[in-house]
Amino acid sequence: MSHTDSKRGGERLVYWNGKLVPEPEARLSIYDSALMFGDVAFEMTRSFNGKQFKLRGHLERLVASAAWLRIPLRETVEELESICDEVVRANEPLFADDDEHRLLINVTRGLLGIYDGRVNVPSGPNLIVADFPLRWTVRGSEHLYREGIDIFIPSQRMIPAQLLEPKVKNRNRIHYLMANIEASRYNGKNAWALLVDPDGFVTEGTGSNFFIVKNGELLSAEPRNMLRGISRQYVIELAAGLGIPFREVNLEPYDVMTADEAFFTCTPFCMVPATSYLGRPLGAGTVGPIYRRLIDAWSSNVGVDIVGQIAGWGDAETSKPGAATPYSFTDDDNG
Amino acid sequence: MSHTDSKRGGERLVYWNGKLVPEPEARLSIYDSALMFGDVAFEMTRSFNGKQFKLRGHLERLVASAAWLRIPLRETVEELESICDEVVRANEPLFADDDEHRLLINVTRGLLGIYDGRVNVPSGPNLIVADFPLRWTVRGSEHLYREGIDIFIPSQRMIPAQLLEPKVKNRNRIHYLMANIEASRYNGKNAWALLVDPDGFVTEGTGSNFFIVKNGELLSAEPRNMLRGISRQYVIELAAGLGIPFREVNLEPYDVMTADEAFFTCTPFCMVPATSYLGRPLGAGTVGPIYRRLIDAWSSNVGVDIVGQIAGWGDAETSKPGAATPYSFTDDDNG
Amino acid sequence: MSHTDSKRGGERLVYWNGKLVPEPEARLSIYDSALMFGDVAFEMTRSFNGKQFKLRGHLERLVASAAWLRIPLRETVEELESICDEVVRANEPLFADDDEHRLLINVTRGLLGIYDGRVNVPSGPNLIVADFPLRWTVRGSEHLYREGIDIFIPSQRMIPAQLLEPKVKNRNRIHYLMANIEASRYNGKNAWALLVDPDGFVTEGTGSNFFIVKNGELLSAEPRNMLRGISRQYVIELAAGLGIPFREVNLEPYDVMTADEAFFTCTPFCMVPATSYLGRPLGAGTVGPIYRRLIDAWSSNVGVDIVGQIAGWGDAETSKPGAATPYSFTDDDNG
Amino acid sequence: MSHTDSKRGGERLVYWNGKLVPEPEARLSIYDSALMFGDVAFEMTRSFNGKQFKLRGHLERLVASAAWLRIPLRETVEELESICDEVVRANEPLFADDDEHRLLINVTRGLLGIYDGRVNVPSGPNLIVADFPLRWTVRGSEHLYREGIDIFIPSQRMIPAQLLEPKVKNRNRIHYLMANIEASRYNGKNAWALLVDPDGFVTEGTGSNFFIVKNGELLSAEPRNMLRGISRQYVIELAAGLGIPFREVNLEPYDVMTADEAFFTCTPFCMVPATSYLGRPLGAGTVGPIYRRLIDAWSSNVGVDIVGQIAGWGDAETSKPGAATPYSFTDDDNG
Amino acid sequence: MSHTDSKRGGERLVYWNGKLVPEPEARLSIYDSALMFGDVAFEMTRSFNGKQFKLRGHLERLVASAAWLRIPLRETVEELESICDEVVRANEPLFADDDEHRLLINVTRGLLGIYDGRVNVPSGPNLIVADFPLRWTVRGSEHLYREGIDIFIPSQRMIPAQLLEPKVKNRNRIHYLMANIEASRYNGKNAWALLVDPDGFVTEGTGSNFFIVKNGELLSAEPRNMLRGISRQYVIELAAGLGIPFREVNLEPYDVMTADEAFFTCTPFCMVPATSYLGRPLGAGTVGPIYRRLIDAWSSNVGVDIVGQIAGWGDAETSKPGAATPYSFTDDDNG
Amino acid sequence: MSHTDSKRGGERLVYWNGKLVPEPEARLSIYDSALMFGDVAFEMTRSFNGKQFKLRGHLERLVASAAWLRIPLRETVEELESICDEVVRANEPLFADDDEHRLLINVTRGLLGIYDGRVNVPSGPNLIVADFPLRWTVRGSEHLYREGIDIFIPSQRMIPAQLLEPKVKNRNRIHYLMANIEASRYNGKNAWALLVDPDGFVTEGTGSNFFIVKNGELLSAEPRNMLRGISRQYVIELAAGLGIPFREVNLEPYDVMTADEAFFTCTPFCMVPATSYLGRPLGAGTVGPIYRRLIDAWSSNVGVDIVGQIAGWGDAETSKPGAATPYSFTDDDNG
Repeated sequence: MSHTDSKRGGERLVYWNGKLVPEPEARLSIYDSALMFGDVAFEMTRSFNGKQFKLRGHLERLVASAAWLRIPLRETVEELESICDEVVRANEPLFADDDEHRLLINVTRGLLGIYDGRVNVPSGPNLIVADFPLRWTVRGSEHLYREGIDIFIPSQRMIPAQLLEPKVKNRNRIHYLMANIEASRYNGKNAWALLVDPDGFVTEGTGSNFFIVKNGELLSAEPRNMLRGISRQYVIELAAGLGIPFREVNLEPYDVMTADEAFFTCTPFCMVPATSYLGRPLGAGTVGPIYRRLIDAWSSNVGVDIVGQIAGWGDAETSKPGAATPYSFTDDDNG
Repeated sequence: MSHTDSKRGGERLVYWNGKLVPEPEARLSIYDSALMFGDVAFEMTRSFNGKQFKLRGHLERLVASAAWLRIPLRETVEELESICDEVVRANEPLFADDDEHRLLINVTRGLLGIYDGRVNVPSGPNLIVADFPLRWTVRGSEHLYREGIDIFIPSQRMIPAQLLEPKVKNRNRIHYLMANIEASRYNGKNAWALLVDPDGFVTEGTGSNFFIVKNGELLSAEPRNMLRGISRQYVIELAAGLGIPFREVNLEPYDVMTADEAFFTCTPFCMVPATSYLGRPLGAGTVGPIYRRLIDAWSSNVGVDIVGQIAGWGDAETSKPGAATPYSFTDDDNG
Repeated sequence: MSHTDSKRGGERLVYWNGKLVPEPEARLSIYDSALMFGDVAFEMTRSFNGKQFKLRGHLERLVASAAWLRIPLRETVEELESICDEVVRANEPLFADDDEHRLLINVTRGLLGIYDGRVNVPSGPNLIVADFPLRWTVRGSEHLYREGIDIFIPSQRMIPAQLLEPKVKNRNRIHYLMANIEASRYNGKNAWALLVDPDGFVTEGTGSNFFIVKNGELLSAEPRNMLRGISRQYVIELAAGLGIPFREVNLEPYDVMTADEAFFTCTPFCMVPATSYLGRPLGAGTVGPIYRRLIDAWSSNVGVDIVGQIAGWGDAETSKPGAATPYSFTDDDNG
Repeated sequence: MSHTDSKRGGERLVYWNGKLVPEPEARLSIYDSALMFGDVAFEMTRSFNGKQFKLRGHLERLVASAAWLRIPLRETVEELESICDEVVRANEPLFADDDEHRLLINVTRGLLGIYDGRVNVPSGPNLIVADFPLRWTVRGSEHLYREGIDIFIPSQRMIPAQLLEPKVKNRNRIHYLMANIEASRYNGKNAWALLVDPDGFVTEGTGSNFFIVKNGELLSAEPRNMLRGISRQYVIELAAGLGIPFREVNLEPYDVMTADEAFFTCTPFCMVPATSYLGRPLGAGTVGPIYRRLIDAWSSNVGVDIVGQIAGWGDAETSKPGAATPYSFTDDDNG
Repeated sequence: MSHTDSKRGGERLVYWNGKLVPEPEARLSIYDSALMFGDVAFEMTRSFNGKQFKLRGHLERLVASAAWLRIPLRETVEELESICDEVVRANEPLFADDDEHRLLINVTRGLLGIYDGRVNVPSGPNLIVADFPLRWTVRGSEHLYREGIDIFIPSQRMIPAQLLEPKVKNRNRIHYLMANIEASRYNGKNAWALLVDPDGFVTEGTGSNFFIVKNGELLSAEPRNMLRGISRQYVIELAAGLGIPFREVNLEPYDVMTADEAFFTCTPFCMVPATSYLGRPLGAGTVGPIYRRLIDAWSSNVGVDIVGQIAGWGDAETSKPGAATPYSFTDDDNG
Repeated sequence: MSHTDSKRGGERLVYWNGKLVPEPEARLSIYDSALMFGDVAFEMTRSFNGKQFKLRGHLERLVASAAWLRIPLRETVEELESICDEVVRANEPLFADDDEHRLLINVTRGLLGIYDGRVNVPSGPNLIVADFPLRWTVRGSEHLYREGIDIFIPSQRMIPAQLLEPKVKNRNRIHYLMANIEASRYNGKNAWALLVDPDGFVTEGTGSNFFIVKNGELLSAEPRNMLRGISRQYVIELAAGLGIPFREVNLEPYDVMTADEAFFTCTPFCMVPATSYLGRPLGAGTVGPIYRRLIDAWSSNVGVDIVGQIAGWGDAETSKPGAATPYSFTDDDNG
């Protein structure tokens, strides 16, 4: 229960167009364009030691996403920063001392024109900022950092950018679910789907970016048919700082199978190693040294033992993963 | 105001997982998969003289859509029919005598697994049935039946079925909005976007199907990269009844430009004629005789003068079309 | 052991460029183009009650395949028929009374030019005809006819005809193996891979053709990116005889999921029903009535209870399926 | 005759699953997966002054190819090296003093499961290593080094990696033969096919890689739809050593036509210059200076005058090129 | 020399925007959009016994082509007919008794705007109608009707309709020339290029349409990436009259190779048989019976022995075919 | 009127196969391959202070274009330079003191073979060099340099190089016109079409190349589906001189929308800034600093204030832009 996660009783609050409302009230009308078209620009963040990580980068991307979708978002990046601060402060009393804040920031276009003024729901775009404990997303995942992911290539192809722009973080993501459904039928442990595009090039996971290491060089797909993740960008910067050469290429499954190391990046998990490709050991079949250097640098920079923190949060509640929503194992994103 | 549309005061009711709730309460948690992934199977219907049209066909498609998306919808088609009846009866007192019932039926996967049990929102899939006056959607559109649509081909291409299956009616439809945004910048009157797929073949409008008439023959695109609309299917049946030959082909813009007639079909509008292609008269440049035969037969079969009814509902409220949501001119669909 | 299958001792004989050689000697030099390029035109047949089925059709296709590949096959269709007869007669004493003859007919281009005259192997094209009991291929498969296949869509796409012509029956078929490897990792029972092409259209199984039934109509993919199977053609003829309407279409996975019935066709199995799609029941989830009419007509026409014969051959030897070659569950083909 | 090439009588020996067998016995059962599916991972090498060149690189690629195809190759790279040494030593007495050893290393999956235990052929994967004089492949080709190749673009397109992975060296190569058949009908001298992929990008020859020189820079196609040849890699290293800048690009036929120089690389020929494009002189129309620097460095490094050695082996036997197998002018590969 | 073709001296006249000008004056300014962009809608026709064939069909297509290109052609189809009549009458005295009239009808957009009023050339669109003896195009081709065409597939692909609409008859046809250049390097007799599109489907020749006959049925490509030729349409009508079944399909090279008959259609040649595919006999390797029935019916309908007339015009002048323009063997078109 | 532009009376002269003819006589026979196939290799240049800019680069490209098209151009680059000089000298007296010379250099294949010797027009390829004042093209465009272009993405896709090679400067450019026609219907000011290719990548304008600036780095599309413009190349050199980093990438519309600056390059305009993308401000929405540094350097290097010169030439004559040829706003090219 979320309530046992918090220091004291009370209900989390969600920012909703200028007000703070209790979380159970953070609900959107069925007449909103968000529910009609998946018409939402969004971001999901995390904190380290309570401090939001790369918040400005997330918010700048949010503004660009809304611009692409022509959603008339009124707030500036600075105003968005203030709102996020306010939400975190408001919820802080409900968070455990060892919690991290995971912000969920949605921008919807609002009621469709034909419903406007008719259905007793305010019109205009909606800005919504929710805040919940990161542990919900990552608890029980510590073994992934030890055992590594088994990379699975689903039949579902990534939708290329010219048809649906993945660099615009939006809620048209049923293809992610379809890929995850396939992964759930794959006979392997710790399987994550890695999507290839119609050209057969590696793109991204269903909410994560992907890297390989080959001959001491860090490689990632050309940033085309993917979200250009903030974690991805940070890993590139870490590599530069550590003197690890980096290149973007047209990455192919063969490159993945013959890589020395591989890993996924995403906001809640930071970096998760992959140790096999379709069940066959990748490289030495263990978590690799360059991966370790990068995640250690990251942990050191943010003052949090990334994996240790997850381990400290304990096991997943056994009833959670699956049940009603077996195919969407996570809420997130390659932020 | 919706309230002035109704015979008496009160609030419309929405079916929500077994209960009827007031329409303003018909809101979905931001943690629902629907808002995370556009993860909704849905249908929108209409009545003629208060009687739902082809309801069973809509509901069978809904079941197939949920099956494709692996949303564990529990209700059978028969149960869904009963629920729809119940919703219509509950709202009937609020509808004007000349109103038609437009049902909006949503099925969402429900809370993502990681939020399940934590955010004080019930888990499991959601079945939602709302009911509102059809006039909201179509009022002020009578001139389209006289003047005809100007067909506009946007740069946005239809997402092909192998990447996102449009035959599964779902809420991943940002590409429709992007096409409509382009149409809103096109310098022409009564412009509707007609999407071509990456092969350059004509597919559908942004919520409608499309037909042409050439040399007395009715032609429509192969039912591939489109929703297979129930109105589309009904037009095919009407044509058979009237002895108008019909074929499905790989339809191209050149065929459209050189057609004798053309029209769109969708649930709320039934059939809307197109009289020009990118501003150039199509055929005789007027509403065509085969179109007229078909819509007359339809009106006759359902006992409603389809265009006359819309005309009777008067002009659109001038403030409506656009404002907050300029690019989504309608709520619907090629049902 | 094959020897226990036969009426009496002795070794099966294989036709090899005009001679009959013992089966263990039916081996091809590693310098043959067949082993260098997969450069073989071939056919595989079966008998009913000892009589070869549609042999002429197989041989005409073989001649066309060799012509496409520019392999200078010297024999006419008539001569090929005589050779096949000769092989069957020669092996007849070794076959059990209830055996059927499965012919394997290979045409290779022969030694590559640079080895010609150097490696002590005769030059020129090779014509090879082997004959073995059909039971090897089908024994232990009777349950498939009761339970039905679970259709699995692999990530591996069919190679389209313009890149590698599948209508030419040849030995470049590693993509079939890769698809089967994926199927072997799929968590489902009786799974057979159904390949889609790069356009997302259904093509064929890995050695079989595919049909669906929808609203009483028999549908199959346009005969483009597939072998045009002889069993497929026979089913089309059976349907015509039974008054079952048939059409070729651009078939899609959505059509498969929403079909009333589905089945695969191939030479050794004739027709195998599919009863689920990715684990979800297809139609009624049982073997369908149109399938039954077709296979009954087939059985009747050839005077063999097709399924009963397989059942009569008993269970598969447990050690067989897999071991050294786990991914290639069958030898054959949509012949 | 091969026998006249050798120092003394006797028969070459081929390694076959742990034994050495006489070359005419190096034959594979028609029931082997190799003959059923082109299901072979392979390598072909050469020596310089009797010393194998980059053998380890070849063998590491062989292991990766088998891994991709899921052929359970049991030998390690080190064991494969020993086996190759053993084969060379065993055949050494049969080679002329000026011969070089060309190894042919095949790994097949072995008998298909259904034949296993039935056809009197051992089961399990096969490892085969043959050894023959390089002169068979290259004799009579010295004029190519003087006159240069005329680059021909066939209609046959390269099969892209996502459909059939060319970086996995395997025997599904009928598309190479089809391209060579086209080249044999092209009205030009010394024509070699250069394949473009479905995007129109230059990929590779039918068993060779390809480079151009433009403005002093060495350019090659992005290593995508091609075998990543060991000779190609060596040329890149040679260029680095000589200070010649190198880049991988999306290479197009226009780049080829407007290049200053061009050449093919492959194991038996090392580097062959191209001097015309579809019959029109390329650059100066003669063998270029950067090509010369590279092949001179190569010759120097390996202590063999590469072209001189070929010239020394004399003319091709006139009856050889063609006859039974006119379209497969060579046995090999961009090794 | 054209002068020797005519009954008496004098110069042919060309219609030019309302005037008749001598043929050598029928020249277009280098500043015309026609020369800047290949921006010309056009038609080429022929007569039988002096009577224009299907002139109205040609002119209707011309009007559609101009409409697609948004060239503001002012003349109606009826006015265009009158102009064509006028041109034929004006030139009649210069034609030999056995000549047929080949009209060349061009519509250009006229001077680019920036040159308008500056370069001493009239502005506005140009309508040009020339008239010359058909024998120029077809003389010396009689052997093609006896020997048949050898079908050649070039590397150049057809540009698909969504990129450049071939159903709009226009002068952007360099891809035809590039295909013809390839055919000129092909080592075969009577070779005509048959273009496949990027999907590998057969489209058209470089100025002709294409049919095959298989099992008594006439087949042609779906009318997509091709000009929908008037001769093609006429053959379809002839087949209907003769009771020959006809279907449009996604035609592939394999279908061509395995056809019983094949032929090209175009305005000047009407129907030319193909008797081989890449040098290999097609069907019986001779001119086929269904082809003969069709061309006989055509000859009969128009009162001209089509092949006999060409034979009567004698051999080509030896110096003609090639010289300055070797690759464009004909002027025309699948009209 | 052109005559009022010149210092004195007289008519401009055009080089035509060795002669200088008056401009109104610079007309091409309707039987020329240029008019039949858009079969012209060409270049358009400009001078600064009367001195031709990068003339040699233009002529080298012309020679390559003719080679690709297999037009047997006889002149060497040096001879072409002399001819251009001669044309400029001959026309100099007719140019105003502040005029710049815009050369138009066409190479056509000449009469089609079938007309050769028949239509009283010389045979063989034509070399044509015209010379007119640059002000015709650019006058009245000064506001573009202040206000910037609004980038418009048309539905028309760029034809990729493998179907029609845009690096070969030729007259098959109807797709440019079709894109411009779309732009003319777009409801925005200063709109220029920016074409994407079938992969959705940015290519070029309709006669211009395109750059963006992002985080201080200059980016341009990989030089694939575009003319490799001489102005583009010069900007790359200018950037190198100014220390501005430059990279070629697979550029996408999202990159354009999120760029800091953007601009087009072409010969007559040199560099034109873009300040919005589909009506939304791009970067700061004003002409950017890196653009200014580049154009200032260019102006300085050539000794001409590029924008000032255009401003000095005054407004466009109001009747010019449009009228007969509304869709082809300019004559040129990304030279």
